[in-house]
Amino acid sequence: MASSDTGGPRVAVIGGGLVGALNACFLAKRNFQVDVYEAREDIRVAKSTRGRSINLALSYRGRQALKAIGLEDQVVSKGVPMRARMIHSLSGKKSAIPYGNSSQYILSISREKLNKDLLTAVESYPNAKVHFGHKLSKCHPEEGVVTVLGPDQVPRDVTYDLIVGCDGAYSTVRAHLMKKPRFDYSQQYIPHGYMELTIPPKNGEYAMEPNCLHIWPRNAFMMIALPNMDKSFTCTLFMPFEEFENLPTNYDVLNFFQKNFPDAIPLMGEQALLRDFFLLPAQPMISVKCSPFHLKSHCVLMGDAAHAIVPFFGQGMNAGFEDCLVFDELMDKFNNDLSLCLPEFSRFRIPDDHAISDLSMYNYIEMRAHVNSRWFLFQRLLNRFLHAIMPSTFIPLYTMVAFTRIRYHEAVLRWQWQKR
Amino acid sequence: MASSDTGGPRVAVIGGGLVGALNACFLAKRNFQVDVYEAREDIRVAKSTRGRSINLALSYRGRQALKAIGLEDQVVSKGVPMRARMIHSLSGKKSAIPYGNSSQYILSISREKLNKDLLTAVESYPNAKVHFGHKLSKCHPEEGVVTVLGPDQVPRDVTYDLIVGCDGAYSTVRAHLMKKPRFDYSQQYIPHGYMELTIPPKNGEYAMEPNCLHIWPRNAFMMIALPNMDKSFTCTLFMPFEEFENLPTNYDVLNFFQKNFPDAIPLMGEQALLRDFFLLPAQPMISVKCSPFHLKSHCVLMGDAAHAIVPFFGQGMNAGFEDCLVFDELMDKFNNDLSLCLPEFSRFRIPDDHAISDLSMYNYIEMRAHVNSRWFLFQRLLNRFLHAIMPSTFIPLYTMVAFTRIRYHEAVLRWQWQKR
Repeated sequence: MASSDTGGPRVAVIGGGLVGALNACFLAKRNFQVDVYEAREDIRVAKSTRGRSINLALSYRGRQALKAIGLEDQVVSKGVPMRARMIHSLSGKKSAIPYGNSSQYILSISREKLNKDLLTAVESYPNAKVHFGHKLSKCHPEEGVVTVLGPDQVPRDVTYDLIVGCDGAYSTVRAHLMKKPRFDYSQQYIPHGYMELTIPPKNGEYAMEPNCLHIWPRNAFMMIALPNMDKSFTCTLFMPFEEFENLPTNYDVLNFFQKNFPDAIPLMGEQALLRDFFLLPAQPMISVKCSPFHLKSHCVLMGDAAHAIVPFFGQGMNAGFEDCLVFDELMDKFNNDLSLCLPEFSRFRIPDDHAISDLSMYNYIEMRAHVNSRWFLFQRLLNRFLHAIMPSTFIPLYTMVAFTRIRYHEAVLRWQWQKR
Repeated sequence: MASSDTGGPRVAVIGGGLVGALNACFLAKRNFQVDVYEAREDIRVAKSTRGRSINLALSYRGRQALKAIGLEDQVVSKGVPMRARMIHSLSGKKSAIPYGNSSQYILSISREKLNKDLLTAVESYPNAKVHFGHKLSKCHPEEGVVTVLGPDQVPRDVTYDLIVGCDGAYSTVRAHLMKKPRFDYSQQYIPHGYMELTIPPKNGEYAMEPNCLHIWPRNAFMMIALPNMDKSFTCTLFMPFEEFENLPTNYDVLNFFQKNFPDAIPLMGEQALLRDFFLLPAQPMISVKCSPFHLKSHCVLMGDAAHAIVPFFGQGMNAGFEDCLVFDELMDKFNNDLSLCLPEFSRFRIPDDHAISDLSMYNYIEMRAHVNSRWFLFQRLLNRFLHAIMPSTFIPLYTMVAFTRIRYHEAVLRWQWQKR
């Protein structure tokens, strides 16, 4: 059942989500023998996927990583460009604030579609195989040994040259690294939970401006909406858990929306809003940091397993995809020598992933605080003015993060300097 | 094999170290049925204890906790009072800086002796039992179920009204809480390791001033020495791991001591210094924070399991002991109602334990930075002066931490205000 033998080094990718599947493509392209272990069934054939699909904002870093494995055009064609934030004030007034110039936009992408495409891409390599329904039960990261439980529930030990932990915010691989000496780790839950709601198409068309990321900033809470290809929008309501608990009945929920998001009620429809609201409880958001990302020359973490971040800068997937690209670049530089590449990946990449984690947490505060569009507009005008008079030295923070590959930690340093 | 039935609530204390044993006394005094599970053998009968005994500095908070279970006098009688820091400069000059007035001193205590006394105290309660050689293999903290492995290696499930995790910096109980939603956690290793060395008695007497905590501050590294009852001193050398690795041979070690601690070599003796230095590798130091300390009404963490701190304020044991005392005070206040007491313990105690954790990390920087005695002397003089002119409002930070029960987080706030 293993991938066909190319004579290349053997690698186990733990997790067949977005970052795991992308990484498998990078490593297979490098002629490694790749086994991807994914605990869930194949989402391309399974009837319903557990948990909820969220749409994601794909920006430059993520696109560059997809480009390197030849998937950029295919993925972009299935996304909806978002060229501006659309701020919805309490009065119903809407103000569009462009992300950049006309060529600078982010893409609203379906997580599920992208994951399916990436899994199909992995399987196009004869030297890569995805083992669905295979759960990592434990691993010995120092020796490259993983113990996997297949559908037969019989634990099997397999030895690899490299274990790549792409198993998400609650990573099992990371849990094993944590037991090793001198591994720094932190996890922090924010007081907010999130809940997904839907704005369906209206007369077969988008019910709001399609090429925007819609934002309803309301201080203690906030709602956003991203367009889908089927002309619906997926809304995400961010709110402290206590506030969610204060809304136990249909009456409370409608009252709350009437008071805070009156323009959204007719767009969602009262009955659909109430059905979505009580479908699932609000979900928690965790921020995870760790250091190092690797153990010796046999194990490395990428994506949420290495740095789960809060979603308020739209960089979670992009940072994870850039991890794969950075690792690929280092493998070129060090001629596939894992004993050099892994420590260098930790040394080089950790400051950047910690920086985007901090920026995302900063935005968690900022985005909610500015209740109306004035702050957004002022920032935009200020940035345009400064960029106009100093085009090479002044680049707005959002531009650096979303539309360049300037290292995240350098973007933060430049931004702090620019603020002064 | 369980403790005798008093009809009181049943509690499992995980860990029979200092905090676990003290807690067992508090809970047994309260008429709970207490089972302490300790993975090691009974240190009172085992031939040699694994790991190394460190002496500890007992100050006011720890003494107040011991007093509440009637052990203060016994413990104090086995300690050596330390009334001043003795700063050893590179030139060999020594300067004594008192900790406070003549009634204010801390006590150098043997960890092993204290642990033995506390275990004997636990066993003096008919409703308490210590199960040595019993390891927690897993637990269900929400239901109060623990699975313990005794010497027969047969896992046994036992249900309790309360599980108290006192199982140290690498707590198994905490690892189970970490899997629950919305548990914040961080662990950080500092770049320094520590190593214990010995200054034996000289002609049957202390080789240095006995009633002092001796400090050799040397910027990147530092050595301290605490007096023992047998007239020896235990020295602890703190140094970055890389520096330890730079000293692979006898020649390197002696050279290093000659250059940095010339006055210590004759006190230790060259051969004994070299024997101690290469006996064990340098040990890591971890700082652990988490929140909350409890889960529902069945599980609570105390001591290092809740907040492992770096040892540079000498408050690790004292903070852990004060945890037990605070919990005891809350149990009085809430009439043993665990469903009220546990959440209140988290709410009330976490700001204090996080404050002493931050202060200890701050001292890690400060103590090394001030290479000679001038800074210590200046601080002391400034504090005395301010305290003399504002006796009720200005209390030096060290005094608040070591000689009062002013809440740690209040001490920090007052200190920050005083600094201005």
